[in-house]
Amino acid sequence: MLRRLSQRLLLHPEDLEPTRDDFEVIGAFNPGAVAVDGEVVLLVRVAERPAERRDGWTPLPRWDPGEKLSVDWVKSDGLDLRDPRGVVLPNGFSRLTSVSHIRVARSSDGLSIDEVSGPVFAPSTEWGEYGIEDARVTKTGGRYYITYATISRRGVSAALASTTDFVTFVRHGITFPPENKDMVLFPEQIRGDYVALHRPANSTFSPPQMWVARSKDLIDWGRHQHLAGGVYDWEGGRIGAGPPPIKTDEGWLELHHGSGRSGPGGTGVYAGGAMLLDLEDPGRVLRRSPQPILVPEVDYELEGFVGDVVFPTGVVETGDTLLVYYGAADTATAVVELSRREVLDALE
Amino acid sequence: MLRRLSQRLLLHPEDLEPTRDDFEVIGAFNPGAVAVDGEVVLLVRVAERPAERRDGWTPLPRWDPGEKLSVDWVKSDGLDLRDPRGVVLPNGFSRLTSVSHIRVARSSDGLSIDEVSGPVFAPSTEWGEYGIEDARVTKTGGRYYITYATISRRGVSAALASTTDFVTFVRHGITFPPENKDMVLFPEQIRGDYVALHRPANSTFSPPQMWVARSKDLIDWGRHQHLAGGVYDWEGGRIGAGPPPIKTDEGWLELHHGSGRSGPGGTGVYAGGAMLLDLEDPGRVLRRSPQPILVPEVDYELEGFVGDVVFPTGVVETGDTLLVYYGAADTATAVVELSRREVLDALE
Repeated sequence: MLRRLSQRLLLHPEDLEPTRDDFEVIGAFNPGAVAVDGEVVLLVRVAERPAERRDGWTPLPRWDPGEKLSVDWVKSDGLDLRDPRGVVLPNGFSRLTSVSHIRVARSSDGLSIDEVSGPVFAPSTEWGEYGIEDARVTKTGGRYYITYATISRRGVSAALASTTDFVTFVRHGITFPPENKDMVLFPEQIRGDYVALHRPANSTFSPPQMWVARSKDLIDWGRHQHLAGGVYDWEGGRIGAGPPPIKTDEGWLELHHGSGRSGPGGTGVYAGGAMLLDLEDPGRVLRRSPQPILVPEVDYELEGFVGDVVFPTGVVETGDTLLVYYGAADTATAVVELSRREVLDALE
Repeated sequence: MLRRLSQRLLLHPEDLEPTRDDFEVIGAFNPGAVAVDGEVVLLVRVAERPAERRDGWTPLPRWDPGEKLSVDWVKSDGLDLRDPRGVVLPNGFSRLTSVSHIRVARSSDGLSIDEVSGPVFAPSTEWGEYGIEDARVTKTGGRYYITYATISRRGVSAALASTTDFVTFVRHGITFPPENKDMVLFPEQIRGDYVALHRPANSTFSPPQMWVARSKDLIDWGRHQHLAGGVYDWEGGRIGAGPPPIKTDEGWLELHHGSGRSGPGGTGVYAGGAMLLDLEDPGRVLRRSPQPILVPEVDYELEGFVGDVVFPTGVVETGDTLLVYYGAADTATAVVELSRREVLDALE
């Protein structure tokens, strides 16, 4: 891993008010990040769950269409409760124990939070009934495009929205059908195409891997290629895109997350790595990090709702310094400063 | 289920020569079908496996790029061999015990086979190393478009090819990334868009279901909508598109397959059903069959490589009669004649 020039915990669940008085915020993490007029705007995933406990019953929260946060109480008897993130119902399918929406946070220096708004980007359709998660934000063509995961009884899909002001949001629908997440948009068109990274689900034949797709209009996507699987142990179990790629003279610098093979019920350590993609053919990996560049090491990364997780989702450049925004332990939002030169030099 | 006006076994594995002398054909099934100049062209899935047996070893066939059929011999010790269709490797991922390619068969009367060609549409890229399966064929814009599943270490993807003569084929790449199959193309553009049905894999949150997507150019696809899940018991475990939809005055008539909930290791019965989709908005289901219209009942449907399976993949209209081509027991190709009027009348 690389030297951290600085590190800072930015947001913790206690910093935020729940959407409903009888809910509690358990996560403020996996933030999209973008520089806007000299400040940094973060799109933070806020995970909430009912605060009430009832013996023998499990509360399963749900966003109803129209941005109404509701709860289904189901008998705990018959549920598989081993994973804290979700339960398995008697029919074999899952529900999440918390639901997420996205809130906007602003930072004038990139290293501390000035303000967090109320819930501004919440699930409003049936596609988000189990929440929307892990926004990435890319400025292209004068708009800010937000790629995120939307979760419902139909599965986990990648979706697109856009905004000019982070107050009102236009929803552009589902871009990659289930199971797909970690869609990340390049900041400019390449050879006339918009380009995105995405991550199909694990298959009978392979663990989750990074793919690339192209589009003429951001709405219809195709020309899919496999981009990268986990080739090193630390990313061998699953691998997916992190923040939007950064253009450098040497190629597109993409930070990604990886986790090792996990045992039954385990989630494994999530670490951050990097790869360099060809400027003209971003489906081609030029170099990548044999070792992770960011691993869980401080308390808020080691312990939390799911410990041993760093999950980079935003990056802002200031000169040679990269401000890398990430989710820590599926609980908090943090930032580290890395040297872009040192990141590039770590790639082979 | 509906009255069968006629039924016929068309092709059995013994009717076909294997690609290599030391292989055996174990399936000739799930045929795409289209009327071409007064005859019916069938695109038959041909499944093959090595004929040789070696104690303690399992042969896993593979198509290498360049259309070369190869075999990996792996030690049986450590493999999960319970499913005849595939093995689970010690790393938890699967390999298939047979590999499929597509052959062209021709029928002048639609009810008997005149001729089966050699392997004309075989895997030629890394995407098809574990085979290509379950072609559907749709005539649109003067070309025959073939949608199929392509299987590799990257997963199961939907892909598109086209031909004018069923001799040479143009490959258009992957249309829906893993896990996705049962892509079926409508025969005409609707409100300026090409329209396809597809079937994302089962999710943590749902069983496999039918979706609809749209495209301007057949290459880039988007505007995804959930179309139909299994609402009746016989289709509650999984549901996917069958042949390309047929235009009727009342709507697009789509035959589909469904299976009930299956126990561990079981595959359940596969039956055929039907639904009627809105002519102008094919993402809208108008009516559907509460009961299957085709269930396994004759010997070649009840017994085979996977028994209790009828899997409709092609349909040709002659007046009010529908010639429905289907895979029987994951082994053979068969046809039944159904009355279109009776199919439509069975929908509620």
